[in-house]
Amino acid sequence: MPMPATKILVVNPNTTVSMTATIAAAARAVAAPGTEISAVTSSMGPVSIEGFYDEAFAVPGLIQALLQAPDADAAIIACFDDTGLDAARSVAPFPVVGICEAALLTAGQIAKRIAVITTLPRSIVPLEELVRRYGFAERARVTASNVAVLDLEKPGSGAAKKLDAEIARALEQGAEAIVLGCAGMADLAAALSQKFGVPIVDGVAAAVKQAEALVGLGLTTSRRGSYALPGVKGYSGMLQPFAPKA
Amino acid sequence: MPMPATKILVVNPNTTVSMTATIAAAARAVAAPGTEISAVTSSMGPVSIEGFYDEAFAVPGLIQALLQAPDADAAIIACFDDTGLDAARSVAPFPVVGICEAALLTAGQIAKRIAVITTLPRSIVPLEELVRRYGFAERARVTASNVAVLDLEKPGSGAAKKLDAEIARALEQGAEAIVLGCAGMADLAAALSQKFGVPIVDGVAAAVKQAEALVGLGLTTSRRGSYALPGVKGYSGMLQPFAPKA
Amino acid sequence: MPMPATKILVVNPNTTVSMTATIAAAARAVAAPGTEISAVTSSMGPVSIEGFYDEAFAVPGLIQALLQAPDADAAIIACFDDTGLDAARSVAPFPVVGICEAALLTAGQIAKRIAVITTLPRSIVPLEELVRRYGFAERARVTASNVAVLDLEKPGSGAAKKLDAEIARALEQGAEAIVLGCAGMADLAAALSQKFGVPIVDGVAAAVKQAEALVGLGLTTSRRGSYALPGVKGYSGMLQPFAPKA
Amino acid sequence: MPMPATKILVVNPNTTVSMTATIAAAARAVAAPGTEISAVTSSMGPVSIEGFYDEAFAVPGLIQALLQAPDADAAIIACFDDTGLDAARSVAPFPVVGICEAALLTAGQIAKRIAVITTLPRSIVPLEELVRRYGFAERARVTASNVAVLDLEKPGSGAAKKLDAEIARALEQGAEAIVLGCAGMADLAAALSQKFGVPIVDGVAAAVKQAEALVGLGLTTSRRGSYALPGVKGYSGMLQPFAPKA
Amino acid sequence: MPMPATKILVVNPNTTVSMTATIAAAARAVAAPGTEISAVTSSMGPVSIEGFYDEAFAVPGLIQALLQAPDADAAIIACFDDTGLDAARSVAPFPVVGICEAALLTAGQIAKRIAVITTLPRSIVPLEELVRRYGFAERARVTASNVAVLDLEKPGSGAAKKLDAEIARALEQGAEAIVLGCAGMADLAAALSQKFGVPIVDGVAAAVKQAEALVGLGLTTSRRGSYALPGVKGYSGMLQPFAPKA
Amino acid sequence: MPMPATKILVVNPNTTVSMTATIAAAARAVAAPGTEISAVTSSMGPVSIEGFYDEAFAVPGLIQALLQAPDADAAIIACFDDTGLDAARSVAPFPVVGICEAALLTAGQIAKRIAVITTLPRSIVPLEELVRRYGFAERARVTASNVAVLDLEKPGSGAAKKLDAEIARALEQGAEAIVLGCAGMADLAAALSQKFGVPIVDGVAAAVKQAEALVGLGLTTSRRGSYALPGVKGYSGMLQPFAPKA
Repeated sequence: MPMPATKILVVNPNTTVSMTATIAAAARAVAAPGTEISAVTSSMGPVSIEGFYDEAFAVPGLIQALLQAPDADAAIIACFDDTGLDAARSVAPFPVVGICEAALLTAGQIAKRIAVITTLPRSIVPLEELVRRYGFAERARVTASNVAVLDLEKPGSGAAKKLDAEIARALEQGAEAIVLGCAGMADLAAALSQKFGVPIVDGVAAAVKQAEALVGLGLTTSRRGSYALPGVKGYSGMLQPFAPKA
Repeated sequence: MPMPATKILVVNPNTTVSMTATIAAAARAVAAPGTEISAVTSSMGPVSIEGFYDEAFAVPGLIQALLQAPDADAAIIACFDDTGLDAARSVAPFPVVGICEAALLTAGQIAKRIAVITTLPRSIVPLEELVRRYGFAERARVTASNVAVLDLEKPGSGAAKKLDAEIARALEQGAEAIVLGCAGMADLAAALSQKFGVPIVDGVAAAVKQAEALVGLGLTTSRRGSYALPGVKGYSGMLQPFAPKA
Repeated sequence: MPMPATKILVVNPNTTVSMTATIAAAARAVAAPGTEISAVTSSMGPVSIEGFYDEAFAVPGLIQALLQAPDADAAIIACFDDTGLDAARSVAPFPVVGICEAALLTAGQIAKRIAVITTLPRSIVPLEELVRRYGFAERARVTASNVAVLDLEKPGSGAAKKLDAEIARALEQGAEAIVLGCAGMADLAAALSQKFGVPIVDGVAAAVKQAEALVGLGLTTSRRGSYALPGVKGYSGMLQPFAPKA
Repeated sequence: MPMPATKILVVNPNTTVSMTATIAAAARAVAAPGTEISAVTSSMGPVSIEGFYDEAFAVPGLIQALLQAPDADAAIIACFDDTGLDAARSVAPFPVVGICEAALLTAGQIAKRIAVITTLPRSIVPLEELVRRYGFAERARVTASNVAVLDLEKPGSGAAKKLDAEIARALEQGAEAIVLGCAGMADLAAALSQKFGVPIVDGVAAAVKQAEALVGLGLTTSRRGSYALPGVKGYSGMLQPFAPKA
Repeated sequence: MPMPATKILVVNPNTTVSMTATIAAAARAVAAPGTEISAVTSSMGPVSIEGFYDEAFAVPGLIQALLQAPDADAAIIACFDDTGLDAARSVAPFPVVGICEAALLTAGQIAKRIAVITTLPRSIVPLEELVRRYGFAERARVTASNVAVLDLEKPGSGAAKKLDAEIARALEQGAEAIVLGCAGMADLAAALSQKFGVPIVDGVAAAVKQAEALVGLGLTTSRRGSYALPGVKGYSGMLQPFAPKA
Repeated sequence: MPMPATKILVVNPNTTVSMTATIAAAARAVAAPGTEISAVTSSMGPVSIEGFYDEAFAVPGLIQALLQAPDADAAIIACFDDTGLDAARSVAPFPVVGICEAALLTAGQIAKRIAVITTLPRSIVPLEELVRRYGFAERARVTASNVAVLDLEKPGSGAAKKLDAEIARALEQGAEAIVLGCAGMADLAAALSQKFGVPIVDGVAAAVKQAEALVGLGLTTSRRGSYALPGVKGYSGMLQPFAPKA
């Protein structure tokens, strides 16, 4: 009798459907034989997430997507800001993996010094705050390639060249591995790794393996302390439908 | 000719109107002669904010409230999680003050060691993360009084007694000043300060003075880097109305 | 009946009277309607404070000035080293504000990354130690403009040009707001802010608003722990007159 | 055509064969369908690793074991000190996973506050140094159960009871997940998790999933910087046989 | 021909002559054969140094004492606050050693976890700030024995018993070595070490050896950056005589 | 009656005899009159220690050398990685000094900002980890001169020139003192100090004075906690002879 499949939900918390396709392909490329990837696009919020403001508006759509998939075994939030990760862990009935956290802890097992290369400069500080929260402040450095998220998908935008240049600069300054700091770069890791001869870690792929790991270990979010289930409380206005059920 | 008034908008990011009244009174009690306080309740989201999940759902309502008051001189987010503070700073056309940040930096000018006393244990870790981000990790300690936010308003809930006990414990362990870690405690600071003979800092009051300070200095949020105005980008679904205008 | 005025004492802890005038003007420019600024020059010590040595010799004169103004509501120490701040808080019968601390916490509410630009390189390390103590180690960077304190007042010293160049360099490296790291620069903030289009924070002005804030909140230095009043103890030699009274 | 198996070598760096059996069983219990676990006992060194001294003497045997298995896809060092992990990564032709690092990063994805419970008090400081190096200083606390490593295998040693008591104490103090701080506890995680109703993470199991993750992602140790392959250099004395080949 | 003696000046920065005698004896007890100890009492300032205020007033007398001994080979500041150490290093023509810094770095070479036991609670925070500045924040913990400095010299004050109790408590909590946090405890180290069977480090003794070390290595304070010699600048008022000469 | 000599054992943990001679000479040049230096070369392990791998293999030989000299008063590990320092302290019946730790704490008493200049880039991260463990992360910066350890001894290797260039670069970037980051540089400190006019600290010399200090103070490694003597336990294989005796 075959083992039941591990069902991993990948949520793209921005509302750009074409980016979800890129992400889903990257996830499937590394999924184990018994893993089923289902990728969904958030139904509301910004078309791309660049900085604190977009991030805040992406969370309700993300939570909605998670609560609509109660039979998943694990979920991945496929934006490098780890948008809404703590809120998601507080209500999802399965473990939730962030692609920034997954990428850093993967890279940290194969290198001491890590360069995180993101899109626009405005994302540097939010990512530095994540890096610090995950304990990598002394090991990882965040820089920007000056490529807008949606330009990653546009031929002729010069995105690839700018990213190359930023990777080269990071290696000169002592980086031992590169983390691609945007879910929209998920399809580039393999070629870049080949080109530069160093480990290039894509967060979507890394997160798939962390999700498989947690499911395989039978572990899920602790309900003591920080992630205790929210009580049943009143909600007003149009956000009411997503309030957790008792 | 009289100077124009300084208009400070105080947003209660939870949807409990009675709490807004408590907050407004605390704000007005310390406002300078030329300051006008207007207090609004968020039109959507949870009735109280306790932990990561509630916080995420409170942000859109908060942002909406800020964007509906374009002629304010400064705004205060009156929840001790400093709910959505970075997102708010990214779009509000005036400086935005968080009550946790304001309370810590006020207490830090009159004491070296600070105790932050919050409501439920589930809020400890989110507040510890704020304390760290604001640079007070070595000086401030967060504990919980085990009082739910809405119980602060209920006679007979035993809230006052529990809060007293927690303050006494903090002083025994070396605290030199107390920060009340919930906007719903705003009316208690004066009496507690009298009772314990140490500075007791309420974040709402502290934030009013920081807002007045920023307005008085003619300073507002920097638009370089982290808080650069978000670009005009597409938004899908029901959160669209709050998207910032160019 | 009018409210009583808030009396703020500004002490210039160096002995250069002309600098006190600059400082007093900067303080008065931002003072609230009901605030009275009185500025005094220390009666003994160095003509400027540049580094650890000058700082040590400036403290007794500063303390003397504070103890000779028992009816002040708050005091400001107008040197960016926050000279003798902890000693001052231990004995002054009113809250005491340091201009470095005030500037950092003001800038920190409108920007994530801060550049502190001081005078001579020898002041960098003392200021870095302050920055760390105030919890801004991860957010603020200190550099020197290579302008001696007293040259700030000399036409033809090239001071303005050097300061401009250092601000430009800081902005290129990611600073989102600038803190002027010397009380003698207090008159330059407005013009520089205009010129560079970013918030420029002068510590003297920032400190006036913090002093007003503490007075407005009815808060003063805690007497538990670090700032407990010193006991009445014997003092020998010529420093005896400044010993605190019981 | 079936996928080739993933071959994971688990090295017990102490010389106690019975402990290797416990470790191997724990590893096999969580291995994915296509994973082959082979477990070896170090051929020289101490019978248990407790503190700095034993650790130093366990490294050569560990390295020898790694170099004798050139066709492995990944290796696990099954001692919670992550004995010789950096040295191992410098020469092994496959990724190497430490069970302390794997346990912490697994626990960190399902809980904010982690208790690491080790054997004897003398191991606390070495583990605290690891915890710090891995970036968990603010999230994980190390305590000892006062059980010697080899007593874990002895019926009647009272080991289970002492471990229970230490877990209970950690939960009272705010731990949200427990990490078992010794490879010899690998068989206890499931029952303890059941008993205490919180996630209990065993490092051996966690490491198997991290090894599978790295292999699945096609990632191995970076050869830039810290983990650059050692040059071919002379070795004297009896340790010569383990020197890496060019 | 005999080697010239190493002349070490020990300055007691408080004005209590009997304490200078205790300090001098402790220094001489560990001095190397070729070392000459001369101990002086500051000619002005407080009779004991307890907290920030006393410390500030002790510095000018200390600096005067250093500048009056230009032919010393090294100096020691014999107060555990390392009173005025940075100012002293900026002008003394020989290396200057602080007893807190010397004690910590000595203890740190024979133990991982250190307890610093000081006199009154008001000194805890100032010493914690020193501990942090010297890089021992993660390894040293400061507590108070509740013994006033001058009570150390009074028979019948119960000082010895309180100190014993505090040492016992520190050892229970994991301290591996004890640092006596007051120069007035200098005569107690040997007996306490005997009694408790752990290393007890007295800062005065430790500082003598660090002073001998620096002299023996031919090293003195760097004049680049932080400790660059102060320029010749005007000084006003009665503190003028101690101004450094060009 | 003359005092008995202080016997200091200097162990070169690599197996290059000519380097031991350089080290011994540097140690004797600064030894106090009553100090006897005996220098030994490890009998097994790598010819030079560059990075994590070599370090691991150098420890057993080092421990053997220490245990074969039971009548020493103190020992020095003469490799800048402080190879095996914690293991050595756990079993040596006398205090053990590391040259990196000794150099940093010596430099830290005469300068605020320190540059550590090592040999190859692969040693930077291991040394940064040491610097952090010793509490100098905020004060010391590690860079590489790109000189292999054994090239330091080869005329015509260009080593001196590369080292000069790296020192000059460090001073430009604010270093106030230089620490030579390799035992093989021990003979260069005096000339470089002369040339650059700043303190240049050699770890071997610094360690001799720290060893003399500990012996002079009658202090040795604490046996509580981290450095408790290892129990008598079984050892297998060829490393058995070095196991500590009861």
